[in-house]
Amino acid sequence: MNSRSRFLAACRREETDRPPAWMMRQAGRYLPEYREVRSGSSFLGMVHDPARASEVTLQPIRRYGMDAAVIFCDILVPPAAMGQGVDFLEGQGPVLEPAVRTAADIEGLVDFTASEATGFLGDSIRAVREGLGDERAIIGFCGAPFTVASYMVEGRSSRNFENTKRMMLGEPETFDRLLTRVVDNSIGYLRMQVDAGADVLQVFDSWGGALSAEVYRERILPHVERLVTEARGFGVPVILYVNGCHHLLEVMADSGAEVLGIDWRIDPREAIERVGDRVALQGNLDPCTLFAPPDVVRAEAQRVLDGFKDQRGYIFNLGSGILPKTPLDSVQALWDTVLDGGQGA
Amino acid sequence: MNSRSRFLAACRREETDRPPAWMMRQAGRYLPEYREVRSGSSFLGMVHDPARASEVTLQPIRRYGMDAAVIFCDILVPPAAMGQGVDFLEGQGPVLEPAVRTAADIEGLVDFTASEATGFLGDSIRAVREGLGDERAIIGFCGAPFTVASYMVEGRSSRNFENTKRMMLGEPETFDRLLTRVVDNSIGYLRMQVDAGADVLQVFDSWGGALSAEVYRERILPHVERLVTEARGFGVPVILYVNGCHHLLEVMADSGAEVLGIDWRIDPREAIERVGDRVALQGNLDPCTLFAPPDVVRAEAQRVLDGFKDQRGYIFNLGSGILPKTPLDSVQALWDTVLDGGQGA
Repeated sequence: MNSRSRFLAACRREETDRPPAWMMRQAGRYLPEYREVRSGSSFLGMVHDPARASEVTLQPIRRYGMDAAVIFCDILVPPAAMGQGVDFLEGQGPVLEPAVRTAADIEGLVDFTASEATGFLGDSIRAVREGLGDERAIIGFCGAPFTVASYMVEGRSSRNFENTKRMMLGEPETFDRLLTRVVDNSIGYLRMQVDAGADVLQVFDSWGGALSAEVYRERILPHVERLVTEARGFGVPVILYVNGCHHLLEVMADSGAEVLGIDWRIDPREAIERVGDRVALQGNLDPCTLFAPPDVVRAEAQRVLDGFKDQRGYIFNLGSGILPKTPLDSVQALWDTVLDGGQGA
Repeated sequence: MNSRSRFLAACRREETDRPPAWMMRQAGRYLPEYREVRSGSSFLGMVHDPARASEVTLQPIRRYGMDAAVIFCDILVPPAAMGQGVDFLEGQGPVLEPAVRTAADIEGLVDFTASEATGFLGDSIRAVREGLGDERAIIGFCGAPFTVASYMVEGRSSRNFENTKRMMLGEPETFDRLLTRVVDNSIGYLRMQVDAGADVLQVFDSWGGALSAEVYRERILPHVERLVTEARGFGVPVILYVNGCHHLLEVMADSGAEVLGIDWRIDPREAIERVGDRVALQGNLDPCTLFAPPDVVRAEAQRVLDGFKDQRGYIFNLGSGILPKTPLDSVQALWDTVLDGGQGA
């Protein structure tokens, strides 16, 4: 069983020799070799350059040997291709200008052809496949409708999403139209990634946890479901990740995604009990754990592996993305533990 | 039944004619009369000035007639009294210097006498009582141990709390000592507030939701329990509020607090089912709802009231603090709905 077949088997809830494993944001700033490639250039400059994007995608695989490479890209690539100005300011996060606030703003957005507007991503994926070989999986991704829409409406990172929720509650049809347009454009974008070689697709709902289950089910889920259904139609498994999703597990399981990515606030055994018979699960070590000394990291990673050991269909991951200043000796301790399948596996 | 007796009855899970109601951060920037008093002076300058602090505490009561006034103060007053430099930078939030990172840093903190170091707060509460009369409740408060410790360790607002969690996981005894010292100092601070006239105390755990239930129960709850037990010993009910607490309800109910404050992600009926027979409940309208037009606000407030109508012991509130730019016509619609007890009450 190689890494790729192990990963795909876990998505399909089939037996594996050990849980496949990767790490959200594994191609990132915690790695000195990433910082070297990145040095002197902008984040978006890297995303748009297949040579460097594929190089940093491969770096963590070379160093640690995860089962899957996640393509170096950003969930705000589609809003940019839809015509919004997107920039990343150092220390500030993304800025999207002008913010999308009205029905007219939404109608002014462009429907893009993925191979033209975002062909760099297809090129990056093909370059990753060339460097990676056939034995490991490639994960493509996009942002989930609420998360992408919230960036488009707020124009930047937000703690509260008041403008997004104002639109959702005050102008429900306008908001619905925005989600529809985000999904319309995400579908072709995901198809291009599969055509270029992605084996699996993850839909990132970084901020969906800010909504109650009732609101998520009524207002957001139909859009997520459409996206997931279309993506599954391309012949690949889909992972739906929502941060802060303790209250959303059952709603997520109704999305049609084969795998649910969950955060560290959820006890693995509770997740298994609530939805583990319907979907594969992915997660959920707190990324802050990696700031602790290596022996603590080993113990905590083992606890996660133990917690999920009765789940049919399990992929090891963090509960959210690895943080930029994470110390490398702890990351090493994590991968030593996980790729051995832990002590009990 | 006046507002004060209504509020205290709800805390004790006794019958009330309608749910008592207040709003976290109700003395705040969304009010033009607050901005006028605040004009030209710093946030901490206001906190330290009983005349202005009591004035802004009374403003929302005059305008809307809530059942309780929450004293204008800040959860970072105790860290400042313990010797850490605390400042609020416009648009940036709090800055605490130097950050507390080591056992020596913790030992260097001061145990303060509340009436001396924070006597301004006692004076503010007495001034509020004078202006408020005896018919409404006064709510005093402090930060919960994890939240206060996280500010002290991070030195500022944080999304991930990596330094705090590093200490918690890597140096558990050091972290435990910090929580102990925070609680030691919070006890006298709460006692002073009750002596000055507070009828109820709320413990704010703004960031406790970042911990799993298991970690919260093992590492944090003993400290919360000690704080709550001591505070109840002063003869007043205690409200424990945790933001993002869907996974923590049962742990919170074990704290000994009479009332649990919950956020909007939790369905009221689920909260009632899980812990409603053990504690009174407070919450939980999403503060972003108040950015929607007044008719939407009325409907959403009514949904919250309806959701809690079978709960014995219920206090209406938002699910977190009201936001600075909230439009006043929607706030008015909220209070028109809630103080009438809603349509069905």
